[in-house]
Amino acid sequence: MVTLNSTEVLNTVVPETGHGNHSEDSPFLSSADAVKKTDFYDRNLALFEEELDIRPKVSSLLSRLVNYTNITQGAREHEEAENTETLRRKSPNMGTLMGVYLPCLQNIFGVILFLRLTWIVGTAGIVQSFLIVLMCCSCTMLTAISMSAIATNGVVPAGGAYFMISRSLGAEFGGAVGICFYLGTTFAAAMYILGAIEIFLKYLVPQAAIFHASDHHGGDSAILNNMRVYGTICLSLMAVVVFVGVKYVNKLASLFLACVIISIVSIYAGAIKSVFQPPDFSICMLGNRTLVRDQFDVCSKTVLEGNVTVPSQLWRNFCSSGNMSSPQCDDYFNQNNVTEIQGIPGLASGIIRDNMWGDYREKGQILEKAGLPSVDVHGAVESIGLYVSADIATSFTLLVGIFFPSATGIMAGSNRSGDLKDAQKSIPIGTILAITTTTLVYFSSVVLFGACIEGAVLRDKFGDAVSKNLVVGTLSWPSPWVIVIGSFFSTVGAGLQSLTGAPRLLQAIAKDNIIPFLRVFGHGKANGEPTWALLLTGLIAELGILIASLDMVAPILSMFFLMCYLFVNLACAVQTLLRTPNWRPRFKYYHWALSFLGMSMCLALMFISSWYYAIVAMCIAGMIYKYIEYQGAEKEWGDGIRGLSLSAARYSLLRLELGPPHTKNWRLIIMFFVSLDLHVKYPRLLTFVSQLKAGKGLTIVGSVIQGQFLDSYGETQASEQAVKNMMEIERVKGFCQVVVASKVREGIAHLIQSCGLGGMKHNTVVMGWPYGWRQSEDPRAWKTFINTVRCTTAAHLALMVPKNVSFYPSNHERFTDGTIDVWWIVHDGGMLMLLPFLLKQHKVWRKCKMRIFTVAQMDDNSIQMKKDLATFLYQLRIEAEVEVVEMVHSLIRMGSLYSDEEEEVVEPVADKIQMTWTKERYEAERRNRNNAPENFRELMSLKPDQSNVRRMHTAVKLNEVIVNKSHDARLVLLNMPGPPRNTDGDENYMEFLEVLTEGLERVLLVRGGGREVITIYS
Amino acid sequence: MVTLNSTEVLNTVVPETGHGNHSEDSPFLSSADAVKKTDFYDRNLALFEEELDIRPKVSSLLSRLVNYTNITQGAREHEEAENTETLRRKSPNMGTLMGVYLPCLQNIFGVILFLRLTWIVGTAGIVQSFLIVLMCCSCTMLTAISMSAIATNGVVPAGGAYFMISRSLGAEFGGAVGICFYLGTTFAAAMYILGAIEIFLKYLVPQAAIFHASDHHGGDSAILNNMRVYGTICLSLMAVVVFVGVKYVNKLASLFLACVIISIVSIYAGAIKSVFQPPDFSICMLGNRTLVRDQFDVCSKTVLEGNVTVPSQLWRNFCSSGNMSSPQCDDYFNQNNVTEIQGIPGLASGIIRDNMWGDYREKGQILEKAGLPSVDVHGAVESIGLYVSADIATSFTLLVGIFFPSATGIMAGSNRSGDLKDAQKSIPIGTILAITTTTLVYFSSVVLFGACIEGAVLRDKFGDAVSKNLVVGTLSWPSPWVIVIGSFFSTVGAGLQSLTGAPRLLQAIAKDNIIPFLRVFGHGKANGEPTWALLLTGLIAELGILIASLDMVAPILSMFFLMCYLFVNLACAVQTLLRTPNWRPRFKYYHWALSFLGMSMCLALMFISSWYYAIVAMCIAGMIYKYIEYQGAEKEWGDGIRGLSLSAARYSLLRLELGPPHTKNWRLIIMFFVSLDLHVKYPRLLTFVSQLKAGKGLTIVGSVIQGQFLDSYGETQASEQAVKNMMEIERVKGFCQVVVASKVREGIAHLIQSCGLGGMKHNTVVMGWPYGWRQSEDPRAWKTFINTVRCTTAAHLALMVPKNVSFYPSNHERFTDGTIDVWWIVHDGGMLMLLPFLLKQHKVWRKCKMRIFTVAQMDDNSIQMKKDLATFLYQLRIEAEVEVVEMVHSLIRMGSLYSDEEEEVVEPVADKIQMTWTKERYEAERRNRNNAPENFRELMSLKPDQSNVRRMHTAVKLNEVIVNKSHDARLVLLNMPGPPRNTDGDENYMEFLEVLTEGLERVLLVRGGGREVITIYS
Repeated sequence: MVTLNSTEVLNTVVPETGHGNHSEDSPFLSSADAVKKTDFYDRNLALFEEELDIRPKVSSLLSRLVNYTNITQGAREHEEAENTETLRRKSPNMGTLMGVYLPCLQNIFGVILFLRLTWIVGTAGIVQSFLIVLMCCSCTMLTAISMSAIATNGVVPAGGAYFMISRSLGAEFGGAVGICFYLGTTFAAAMYILGAIEIFLKYLVPQAAIFHASDHHGGDSAILNNMRVYGTICLSLMAVVVFVGVKYVNKLASLFLACVIISIVSIYAGAIKSVFQPPDFSICMLGNRTLVRDQFDVCSKTVLEGNVTVPSQLWRNFCSSGNMSSPQCDDYFNQNNVTEIQGIPGLASGIIRDNMWGDYREKGQILEKAGLPSVDVHGAVESIGLYVSADIATSFTLLVGIFFPSATGIMAGSNRSGDLKDAQKSIPIGTILAITTTTLVYFSSVVLFGACIEGAVLRDKFGDAVSKNLVVGTLSWPSPWVIVIGSFFSTVGAGLQSLTGAPRLLQAIAKDNIIPFLRVFGHGKANGEPTWALLLTGLIAELGILIASLDMVAPILSMFFLMCYLFVNLACAVQTLLRTPNWRPRFKYYHWALSFLGMSMCLALMFISSWYYAIVAMCIAGMIYKYIEYQGAEKEWGDGIRGLSLSAARYSLLRLELGPPHTKNWRLIIMFFVSLDLHVKYPRLLTFVSQLKAGKGLTIVGSVIQGQFLDSYGETQASEQAVKNMMEIERVKGFCQVVVASKVREGIAHLIQSCGLGGMKHNTVVMGWPYGWRQSEDPRAWKTFINTVRCTTAAHLALMVPKNVSFYPSNHERFTDGTIDVWWIVHDGGMLMLLPFLLKQHKVWRKCKMRIFTVAQMDDNSIQMKKDLATFLYQLRIEAEVEVVEMVHSLIRMGSLYSDEEEEVVEPVADKIQMTWTKERYEAERRNRNNAPENFRELMSLKPDQSNVRRMHTAVKLNEVIVNKSHDARLVLLNMPGPPRNTDGDENYMEFLEVLTEGLERVLLVRGGGREVITIYS
Repeated sequence: MVTLNSTEVLNTVVPETGHGNHSEDSPFLSSADAVKKTDFYDRNLALFEEELDIRPKVSSLLSRLVNYTNITQGAREHEEAENTETLRRKSPNMGTLMGVYLPCLQNIFGVILFLRLTWIVGTAGIVQSFLIVLMCCSCTMLTAISMSAIATNGVVPAGGAYFMISRSLGAEFGGAVGICFYLGTTFAAAMYILGAIEIFLKYLVPQAAIFHASDHHGGDSAILNNMRVYGTICLSLMAVVVFVGVKYVNKLASLFLACVIISIVSIYAGAIKSVFQPPDFSICMLGNRTLVRDQFDVCSKTVLEGNVTVPSQLWRNFCSSGNMSSPQCDDYFNQNNVTEIQGIPGLASGIIRDNMWGDYREKGQILEKAGLPSVDVHGAVESIGLYVSADIATSFTLLVGIFFPSATGIMAGSNRSGDLKDAQKSIPIGTILAITTTTLVYFSSVVLFGACIEGAVLRDKFGDAVSKNLVVGTLSWPSPWVIVIGSFFSTVGAGLQSLTGAPRLLQAIAKDNIIPFLRVFGHGKANGEPTWALLLTGLIAELGILIASLDMVAPILSMFFLMCYLFVNLACAVQTLLRTPNWRPRFKYYHWALSFLGMSMCLALMFISSWYYAIVAMCIAGMIYKYIEYQGAEKEWGDGIRGLSLSAARYSLLRLELGPPHTKNWRLIIMFFVSLDLHVKYPRLLTFVSQLKAGKGLTIVGSVIQGQFLDSYGETQASEQAVKNMMEIERVKGFCQVVVASKVREGIAHLIQSCGLGGMKHNTVVMGWPYGWRQSEDPRAWKTFINTVRCTTAAHLALMVPKNVSFYPSNHERFTDGTIDVWWIVHDGGMLMLLPFLLKQHKVWRKCKMRIFTVAQMDDNSIQMKKDLATFLYQLRIEAEVEVVEMVHSLIRMGSLYSDEEEEVVEPVADKIQMTWTKERYEAERRNRNNAPENFRELMSLKPDQSNVRRMHTAVKLNEVIVNKSHDARLVLLNMPGPPRNTDGDENYMEFLEVLTEGLERVLLVRGGGREVITIYS
């Protein structure tokens, strides 16, 4: 038997069979096994001995918990491969500081702080930079709060955002977010490599450049090509390092962190020192334009060589002839003075006022200092290269995208939950503290940069004006090299770590097997290193490197990280709003509104920094989501989306309870009785039911097992599974319900009564005809049939009985012509009219025409009736051919043969035993009692058996008429007569139905449920 | 008994009792009544005679349909009041042309066509005017398609949008839309009155103006005040007309339509005539500025009087001295020439090229003709009044808002569905044809105006340049007066009709009684005229008149109509997407995408024409929606929103079926058994269940009636209602399910098996303790209890049995302190731990502390156990005090008294009859067999009755410990021992439970369902 639910607490103590998927450890050991354990019971708990047979005793459960390390399914599968880290896994004893705070710190601080923050402050101004930092950091802070709530809601799954999301929002979201996180990390590797190369080529070894600008315009592409070549080399080297010695990378982490901290400290030291003794970095201005200070040394138009005033090197740069007397100089050079100003005026200089507001530039615009006098003349085009100019157009939104990577990395702590002594305490505290620290550092850096450094230098991205020094380096103490070297190593380290982490994440996703095409990346080297994943990561990072610009790559990874944070917030908000009992985070300071705010901020930041990247990122995530959904990942970890469905179902059903249902909203909700061998015998029954699905209704398939409920749980479950399989084959959407009852008829009565819930209660019963009831020696089959008919009537449900169901069309057949004939004899709710309409929605029946027949009787005006019927159908908006069949006439026509034979029917007292009126018997009776006059009054006072004769007469007559008119119909729908009041007439009733439907290929007997199902009203 | 569903088809043939609400005509006549009808059966249908007892025979149903007029509930209640129209109602025989097409035409064409279309063409240009017309008309066309679908989905409810929406989207939307439609119509009345006054004061009797501009700046306010005074007078007059003689208004409708048609024809005629002989309206230009042509006659600076050139009247207007020789004239007048150009150059002139593109003006800007030479000099301020200038600032969006009322009125046809011979055919055809016609007229008018009339004249809103003629009048043939008079009468007529229609609509809404505060407006005069509603309408219309500007009022009514159209589209889209079987519009050319497009266009137009009006209109609609929802209108007309709930429930439930449930998403779904007298006896049971609701779970209240299902439908329904009432009192949200079974225990077994649906299946059973079972002579009560315990175990459900339930707190009590004590003896899924958590979410239990006790046994290390338990609870994130009770020690302590008394228990073969082990008996046994040594091996081979002794021993010991520790607890939760395997031990079992819980105030016995309900995982 199938036990559907994994029991996770038990899982902690049983060995796992697969990677990460809970083994199916049934909590119900058979009692046969349990008997052996009797010895262990303490007699103090004798009262509970039967429970103790099958359930863990509290003390033993607890003692086993002691041996339990808090590595979870997620952690385990994640770390399975990391054999190199076996040591670490065996001692999960890291505290908040070492386990969360410092790793987070190291991951959050990054290349942007050193390479771009000065430029951002210069371009956006202190106020707007503050805003940028505030936006990015509050976004990550809110995300950290949501993450803390998720991470403290039970044992923390290692593996970061991917595991958190996939375990709380489900495989689809998890996969999408996981891939986003992976791509983000991969592009982060590219960004770090580009940063490292930028430091290397610009500040460390400029002479290493391979490509040189042939002219001013070629400068950009030369730089980019240098980046590409060196980036690719660097990436290859790093990949090799990761491939052969990942353990060294992890060991060097603290070294890299030390580099970062030393660099930051040197900035603060430099800033403090600048109060007393600002560093000596002068910049040379021509007019108000900043000059690139690499092609001259003296900042003056002339120099005094000996006593002679000769043109300076600067002069020579601007003038075509070196002759002082007849200079052919750049106009701007002629009309403006050269001044030298202090690049780092220091904290006490009050420069902060000038840097308060931003100065966004277009690409190629020359950096100007607002305060200096300048005569506005167009200079020569050739001299543009001599000024410091903006290499890209800047805007507030662009800067947001470039800065955001400085705020990412907050998952570093939760990723190593497996190593933590107390993950539930360390993760929130460590992460939030780390974010607070970094935010404070960023805020103070913004202020210090703005307060110490001249605006023209700040805006000078590559330090051209300060002799190609790293701008932030000029501030640092004791030497710019501290920061240049420190940032270089920390950037290389961060790149290595990203390159180590990304393939592992990909491997983890691949091993979860929710994205089949990633399966190959789950494999690794002998030691579990993810070789293929590393290769893919390298290739994607290479894409980033080919972009070659840090400023272009940063927004890309911002997108992916924001996407991921968005879903962390979403997961927390959804779980909080759903309030499932199992949402009990230990971290209490979350609120759905905060998560929602965080979510909105992520979304806003995505669209602020770049709406087209945002759309691309969303499309990627959406495609992955759809792909996983399409693949139908079935993971045994539960997901919150399921909780959402539960809440939605609950809400909708409760809403339905508010008012009474209305004909307008009536839908077919079918209770379909199957016997469990039915599918073999009459598979078309279920097919027929599935063809009625177009009414957007529902099917509940019910089945009854004869037996004792207390012993039949297993059998029930097995049968339910069998029924579900049947339903899947016939594509019937719905539910199944198998009950055990001592008698089948009782089970059916109870199913009819208690199945369904609120507004989703069945209103129609479908069951098969008991074929061969005449031959059967066991009358129970057809007795059950009649009893079910009685039950549906009592429960005011509609009933459908398809006869000759094996002739019914399969779902692959198509009727290209033919009719569906309705014989409307009694109006009992309009079911007869609605069913053909519903059937015709299905492609099998689509091309059939509907005909509706009704029977005119003696006193009916059949012409008027036909007209009225047509009007009625018109108002019902059902297209059908209308025909009124005049039974009276047909009677009269056939009257000479056997009219009014009911008269003088002798009471068949003699054959009380053989009460059944078969057609043959009827014919015989008729022949005997032919040609006698009849009194109508007498007819009315007929005895019960005379009534049977009359019924049989009706059946025969109707059948004649129906066969006559509808012998070619694809399907004949017919009012089903009600069963007799007392059970004596049951056999007659069956006989009547047989006669009524004789000679018809496919018949559907229909009984209305007493309520109108179709309305002429809107 | 209550039959919940109205049967609408039957309603057509029974007299209605209330206005519009279907009378509760049960389709189930009792068979006693029916027997009398037996005479009528034709023997041909003898087979169906039982059906014919209670169901209408087809022929009689049909014959009754003949006498049925297609006035529906909506129509009937709507027209009930319209006694004046009785005649019309009696002959619903209007065709498409008279019934729909012409009324629509009359309602759509309106004042804007005559007063503003020329100005719109002039301002926006032909192309953009085309776009405006296209947008507005395609919006109404799409709405008409949606409306046609709704209107042809069954007998058409009269009353227009309100009835359509309220019957298809529900009372809330219906009310909101109805009020919008009402406000729209009321402001339309104001607009028409303003239009009529504008025609009256500007073109018919300008001298009637009361206020005159004292200076140029005062001109605007003088005009507005004139409008206000005359508007108010006109409104009062019209209100009186409507009050006393509404029938005349309706009779004059065709006259008004004739006016419109004649006016339009005269425009076409004029345009055609202009090809051969353009009308002679010259306009006078100074430079490129248009001059107001009312203060001079000759368009020239000088006139030849005799042979002397004297200054013209124009000259005198511009110059302060009349002296030709030394003129002190306006600069602009001096430097520019006066020219006279043709105002209506005619169709053949090619002027269309100049009018192709728009010329939007700021307020007060002078109208200029682009082609003319002009020297740009500032003229004197005083002379501004002499030029034609723009009276308001124009923009494309403003013009959209002003034009839109010309497209409204499309509901006119569906409003009179009651008068139509074949509403289902006439409404779509008539409405769509009318829209097509009007759209074509608008398109052609735009082109004709642009092709015939000079741009300067077009932009001249009030015809100042053409001697204060109506601009469109200048084009018309034979005389401008045709249009002036025609448009005046048609505008007055439209105003009267709006003023007639609006109160009736308000009355209809009021009579539906969904907005209680409107109730007073439902009353009317003796003849049903809605006096109060007319008064309110007048007051609101007066607000519009006080605005006084046609251009300001038009966007307001545009908003309300757009709002209403939006919902018509929404209703159609929702119904189409839901695909309920009863959505079968006869009009086939609808599609949800079209409706959705229409909806989007309405929304877009709202925000295009005025986003703040749009927000205000939406707020009004939203407030009405919320108000109606709050009032809880319960209407018996079904609504589509209910269908939405059904679809949502279906979708969610089917989604839940996709995968197995997970502990993470586990929620408490309670099946709660009540006997029907329970609420009287133990009302607190349901209270307790309601206190557990915080888990966002669900409660299914089940009850069993003993009896035969076939006869008990009524009883079941009554009981169900009783249970529902109980649930409402205790505010338990959920469902109830009453079943009839021959034995109660069978009923319970079946409820346990078959209640709930898919993912909404109960997982926990709650039932009361069978108090007084010892005293009861009927053992069935407690046998049923034990049987239910067995059933829940078999079905793998959890079980909760609250004991001493009458001591349980009501929902109004608050425990400010105290503890909830959990005695965790066996781990069976964690239910014990989760329940206090859930209870603590409820305000009654919020302040209680949770304590968890477990029992250490002989070989347990209780100190380690306590530590482990604390860790476990920490991981479960449940805050609780932990205590390990050492049963062994307590035993040893008490050992001297009665240790190991099980040894040498004689088999009580003798009293097989009195098998029950009461506490007393146990104590007696104990006393007898005191102080004897015991062998542990022997203990293990105890016979069943020895096992009973052991059990009783446990119960007594445990009870002692529990009472000792938890006697002060607010609630004690306790593992419930399982029932004995064979039924012989049932009485013992009951006794054990009694002993176990003795001396405790409130006890909740809990049995897990075998699956984990709580997890340490995230």
